Amino acid sequence: MAADTLPLAEYLIARLQQLGVKTMFQVPGDFSMGFLDICDDSGLRLVGNCNELNASYAADGYARVLQQDTSAHGHEGARLAVLCTTFGVGELSALNGIAGSYSERLPVLHIVGMPGVASQEKHAILHHTLGDGNFDTFAEMSSHVSCATALLARHKGDPQKLADEVDRVLSTCVGEARPGYLGLPTDLLHVPVDKALLERPLALAHASNDAAREQACLEAISKAVAAVKEPIVVIDACTIRHGAVREALQLVDDSGLSFVATPMGKSALPEDHPSFAGIYLGPNGKGHEKLHKKVEGADLYLFIGALRSDFNTASSFTEFTRQADTIEFHSDRTQVFDQHFDGIGMKELLPKVAALLAESKKDRTPNELHPRNELPSREAEGEAAGPNGDVISQAWLWQRIGSVFEEGDQIIAETGTSSFGLLDTTLPGGLTRFHSQVLWGSIGYATAATLGVAFAASEEGLGRVHCFTGDGSFQLTAQELSTMIRYGLAPVVWALRNDGYEIERQIQGPERSYNNISPWDHEALLKALYAPSAPSSAGGAEEAERKSHAKDVKNVTMPQYHAVRTKDELNALLDGKLGKEGLQLVEIFMRRGDAPQALIGQAEATSKLNA
Amino acid sequence: MAADTLPLAEYLIARLQQLGVKTMFQVPGDFSMGFLDICDDSGLRLVGNCNELNASYAADGYARVLQQDTSAHGHEGARLAVLCTTFGVGELSALNGIAGSYSERLPVLHIVGMPGVASQEKHAILHHTLGDGNFDTFAEMSSHVSCATALLARHKGDPQKLADEVDRVLSTCVGEARPGYLGLPTDLLHVPVDKALLERPLALAHASNDAAREQACLEAISKAVAAVKEPIVVIDACTIRHGAVREALQLVDDSGLSFVATPMGKSALPEDHPSFAGIYLGPNGKGHEKLHKKVEGADLYLFIGALRSDFNTASSFTEFTRQADTIEFHSDRTQVFDQHFDGIGMKELLPKVAALLAESKKDRTPNELHPRNELPSREAEGEAAGPNGDVISQAWLWQRIGSVFEEGDQIIAETGTSSFGLLDTTLPGGLTRFHSQVLWGSIGYATAATLGVAFAASEEGLGRVHCFTGDGSFQLTAQELSTMIRYGLAPVVWALRNDGYEIERQIQGPERSYNNISPWDHEALLKALYAPSAPSSAGGAEEAERKSHAKDVKNVTMPQYHAVRTKDELNALLDGKLGKEGLQLVEIFMRRGDAPQALIGQAEATSKLNA
Repeated sequence: MAADTLPLAEYLIARLQQLGVKTMFQVPGDFSMGFLDICDDSGLRLVGNCNELNASYAADGYARVLQQDTSAHGHEGARLAVLCTTFGVGELSALNGIAGSYSERLPVLHIVGMPGVASQEKHAILHHTLGDGNFDTFAEMSSHVSCATALLARHKGDPQKLADEVDRVLSTCVGEARPGYLGLPTDLLHVPVDKALLERPLALAHASNDAAREQACLEAISKAVAAVKEPIVVIDACTIRHGAVREALQLVDDSGLSFVATPMGKSALPEDHPSFAGIYLGPNGKGHEKLHKKVEGADLYLFIGALRSDFNTASSFTEFTRQADTIEFHSDRTQVFDQHFDGIGMKELLPKVAALLAESKKDRTPNELHPRNELPSREAEGEAAGPNGDVISQAWLWQRIGSVFEEGDQIIAETGTSSFGLLDTTLPGGLTRFHSQVLWGSIGYATAATLGVAFAASEEGLGRVHCFTGDGSFQLTAQELSTMIRYGLAPVVWALRNDGYEIERQIQGPERSYNNISPWDHEALLKALYAPSAPSSAGGAEEAERKSHAKDVKNVTMPQYHAVRTKDELNALLDGKLGKEGLQLVEIFMRRGDAPQALIGQAEATSKLNA
Repeated sequence: MAADTLPLAEYLIARLQQLGVKTMFQVPGDFSMGFLDICDDSGLRLVGNCNELNASYAADGYARVLQQDTSAHGHEGARLAVLCTTFGVGELSALNGIAGSYSERLPVLHIVGMPGVASQEKHAILHHTLGDGNFDTFAEMSSHVSCATALLARHKGDPQKLADEVDRVLSTCVGEARPGYLGLPTDLLHVPVDKALLERPLALAHASNDAAREQACLEAISKAVAAVKEPIVVIDACTIRHGAVREALQLVDDSGLSFVATPMGKSALPEDHPSFAGIYLGPNGKGHEKLHKKVEGADLYLFIGALRSDFNTASSFTEFTRQADTIEFHSDRTQVFDQHFDGIGMKELLPKVAALLAESKKDRTPNELHPRNELPSREAEGEAAGPNGDVISQAWLWQRIGSVFEEGDQIIAETGTSSFGLLDTTLPGGLTRFHSQVLWGSIGYATAATLGVAFAASEEGLGRVHCFTGDGSFQLTAQELSTMIRYGLAPVVWALRNDGYEIERQIQGPERSYNNISPWDHEALLKALYAPSAPSSAGGAEEAERKSHAKDVKNVTMPQYHAVRTKDELNALLDGKLGKEGLQLVEIFMRRGDAPQALIGQAEATSKLNA
C-alpha cells in the first residue's frame, strides 16, 4: 500500500474517530469479523452484545446521551453511535432497534459486514442469504428506516467514490439525526484510499437561515408577541434531537416566560429551573389541574421542536395547543399561526426571539407552579397501598424515587408504568436527562438501551444511570445485564414486579392469560448472568483464552440484588443501602392492577381509538 | 350480526383450524390484543413468547415438524405455523426469523395487529409508527421475505374481498412453503363475513404435470438410466420442503439404489434404511473417504430437491455432482443433463421413475457403506480429549450421543459445532428428524425453535425433542427456556460449553476478544427462568391473577440441570440419569479450539471465500 493511502476500513474508522466515536456495539459474524479485526487494532472499543436487537437498542441509548451538549463541561461527545452486524441474519435482528432510532431521530450508523464482491457478482448461494443470489434485498428492507444507504460493492473499482459514499452516509446520519446504512463487503476492507481525503470537512450542519426571510419571520413573531399577555413556552422532542437545547434555555432565561415540557421533551431543559411549570399532559393530566388551567389559559404558545404523537400529546390527539395561538419552531421551518416560513430553522432563530422577548421580561408574572416531589396522601393511594398502607403504590413510588437522582444522572424509562410514572417525578437540573421511547415504544427497549446510555455517560463523565422497567418488558432483553457487568458498568436497574404486562392490562385483557409472563427469580438471574469464577470450558488452548479475555475482565465489581416489598424497605435503600459500585438490580414488588394516573388516562384513549 | 355471517377474525381463525392449526405463537401488543381475545375464545392455544424474534423462530420450528408426513401414523398435522405480533415494534423484531423461514422454505403465517383503518386514513401520528402517518412501510419491508402480503385495511368496505385476501395469503403460504403476511386492523375484526365462504376449498396443491411433457421427460430419464452402471440417489432439502419424502422413499425402496443425503436433506429418509450410505460432504468429508469415492465414482446422480448453497454442498461450491451426469428433480421442474422440463414436478414424477428403475433392481450392487456410530480411537481424538483422554472431544461426542435418540425424536442443531457435528451422528429411522438452518444459519435460532418443535412434536405424538447449541449461541435467545417450562414441555437442551463462539473462531479471530462471551452460570439460569413459588407481585387483584394463570400452570414439572465434564459422566447420563420428565439442561464441558472435522473444512473454505 502506498504511503499516502490507507485501507478503506481504516478510512471509515478514522472518520468515526474524527466524529468522537470511541465505542462500537456489535455481534460478530463471518462477514463482519474482518472489519472487527481492523477496529480492534485501531483502538475502537468493541462491545460484544448478547444479540443484535439488544445491540441496536444500546446504540440508540448511546446516541441519546450524545445529543446532550456537554461542551460546557469540557467534554466533546461523539456525534453518532455505531452498530456493526453481519449480513442478513445479524442486520435483520437489529431492524426494530434501527426503526426506533429512525422514528425518534437518533443518529446510529449501521455497518453491515457483507459477502465479498466476488461472491456477490457470481450470485453465489451463500449461507445468510435467501438462496436467490441477490445481495441487495436486506439493504432495501433497511432503507425504509435509514436516511442514507450505501452498498459499497457497487463502487469497488473507485476508491474515491468509496470514500465519498462513506462520507455521504456519515454526514446525512449526523445531519438528519437518523440511522445510516453502510454495506461493507469483506473483500473491499483493504482497498487503498487516498489519506488526504480524510482532511475534507464532513458537511454536518444545516444550511443557514436566509436573512431576509428570517427577518420577515421575526417581524411576524414580534407582532404576535406584542398582542398577548400570557404566553407560555412548550418544549418538545426535537429541541433535543436537533441540538437546540442551549438556544431554548436562553429563550426561557432571557424572556422570563414559564415553560412546560411534553413527555418527549422532559428534562431537555433543567427541571429545577425556576420557570419550569411541569409536564403537560393535556386533559389527561389528572392531579395537575392548576397546570392544565395555566396552559389552557395561555394566549400564546411558543412550541419548540413539536412532535405531536398520540402518547406525546398524552391524550391521543385531543386538542393540544390551539393552532391559532401557536408559534412552532422546527429544525428547518417555523410556523407563526397560519404563516409558514420554510427553511427558517430554530437553532439560529431562537436567540433572536429570545432578544425580542427579553424586552418585556420585567412585566412577566413569575412562574408559580414549579413542581416538587410530594408524597401522596393515603387516600390518594387507595387500594394500591395494600390494607396496611405499606405496599409501594405507583402514586407513592414516583414521588419518593425523585430523591435518589443526582445532577447529571441519566434516567431510562421503559414504555409502560415506568415511562408514564416518571412523568410525575421532578428531576434534578444540569445534565440530568430522561430517556424514553415515547413515540416508537418498543417493549424491552429500556434494559438494552441502558447498556449504551451507561457507556456514553461514562465517556462523557455524566452521573449514574437508572433504568426503570417492568417484569414483563424485562424478559425480552434481560440477558444484556450480563454485558453491562462484563464491561464494568454500574447502572441501577429498577424492575417493577407486578405480575405481567401492566400497560397492556390497562388497555385490554386484564384477566387474559396472554398478559401473563413466566415467573422468574431475578436474584438467581443476576447470579446466572455473570459467573467469572465458574469454568467456561474443559480447559485447553489456555494461552489463547487468557490472552483474549484479558481486555474484558478489568474493573468488574460483582452486581447486587435488592428485593423491596414495602415503603420502609425502599426508604432504607434510598437512604444508603444502594451500592455505589457494581450494577444494582432492585426489584420493587407492587400490586397488579395499579398504574400511574397518566397511564390510566392514556390507556382509555388508546382503547377507544382501537375499538 | 346476521346468522349466516361471522366476524372476519373468526373467519380467519376458522380457516386456520381447517388447516389443522392448534397453536399460535405471539407477544401481545395494543394493536393485536383484540384479535388475541377472539383467538382465546375460539380455543386456539396462545403461546406467550418472551420476545418476537424468539416467537418467529418457534413458529419456524413448528412448521418444520409439520413438513413430516405423519398421516401413516394416524396424525393429520397442521399445514402451517402462525405467529401474531403487533404493528411496527413487534413485527420488525420478528423479521430475521421470518426471513429464515423464507430462505429455508417454511410456511409461517405472520398476522400483524394493525392500528384501525380510521387512524390509518387520518395518517395519525400514533405510537409504534415512524411518525410520518404511513401505515404501509413495515408491510413493504416484510414483503421481501413473504410470498404473499395482504393489507386488509385496503378492502375495508368489501367483506368478500377481505375473505378472499385471507384465503389468498393462506393458500400461497402453504403452497409455496414460505411466509405470508396479513395486516389486520383493530377495527376490522368484527366485519361480518359470509359463513358460506368457509366452505370454499383452499387451493393448496401444485398444478398437475402435463402428461405429454412428463412422458418426454420419462423417456429422457429412461435413456439416461439405461446407459449407466453405478447410479446414486442424492436427497436434499426440497424433498422435505415440497412434501416428496414418501415418493423419494418409494424410489430408493423400489430401485434398490444407494442414497446419500446433503446436510439439509439429513434424516428426510430414514437413516436406518439399508440403502443409506451417509451424509455427503464432498471433498470436505474427511474420515469418509470410502463414501467420497463411491459418490465420485457414480456414473449418474438422481438429485432430489437440490439446494446448492455453500454450507449444504459442505465445500463452498467445490464441484458437487457433475451436471453432465445429473438428473435434478424439483417441485416444479426436472432437468435431465442439459435438458430442461419446466412444469414437471417431482411429486408426480418420482413414482414413475421408481417404476422405471425397479426393472433393473436385481442387478444392483447392495449398499456396503451403511454408516454406524463408532467411537473414535484415542489417536483420532488427539489433544481435544485432554491429557488423560477423559475430556469429551467433538470426535467422540457425536458418535456417542447417537445412542440417546429413539425413533421419532426431533433433533435441532444450532449452526455451529452442533450442526456440523451431528452430520456424523447416524440417527434412528421412522419419523426421527434433524432440523437445522443450514442455509440461513442465524445464531440463536436453535434454542427458540425448540419451543415450536416441542409443541408440534407433542401435538403429533412424536418422540422427545433434543436441542444442541453452544454457550455463545445460547445467550441470544436463552430466555425462551422459560416458556418451554411454563407450558410443560420437556425437551433436552444440550449446551456445549467451550468458552465462546467456536464456529467463528474456526473462521477468524481465534484469539480476538470479540469471540468471547460473558461467563454465565447455567444452573442458576435454569432456577431463574422458572420460579413459580416466588411471589410475582405485592398481591392485590388476587382473583384476577388466580383466574388468568390457571390455564398456564398445569402439568409443569420442574426442570433439571446436569453438568457433564468427562466421558464417564456423559456415559452415566446416557445410561439412565437423564430425567424423562421436565426440561433437561445438559451442559457439556469441552475444549476451546476443538471442532468437528466437517466444520474445520467448511471454515477453511469460508475463510478463503471472504478474503
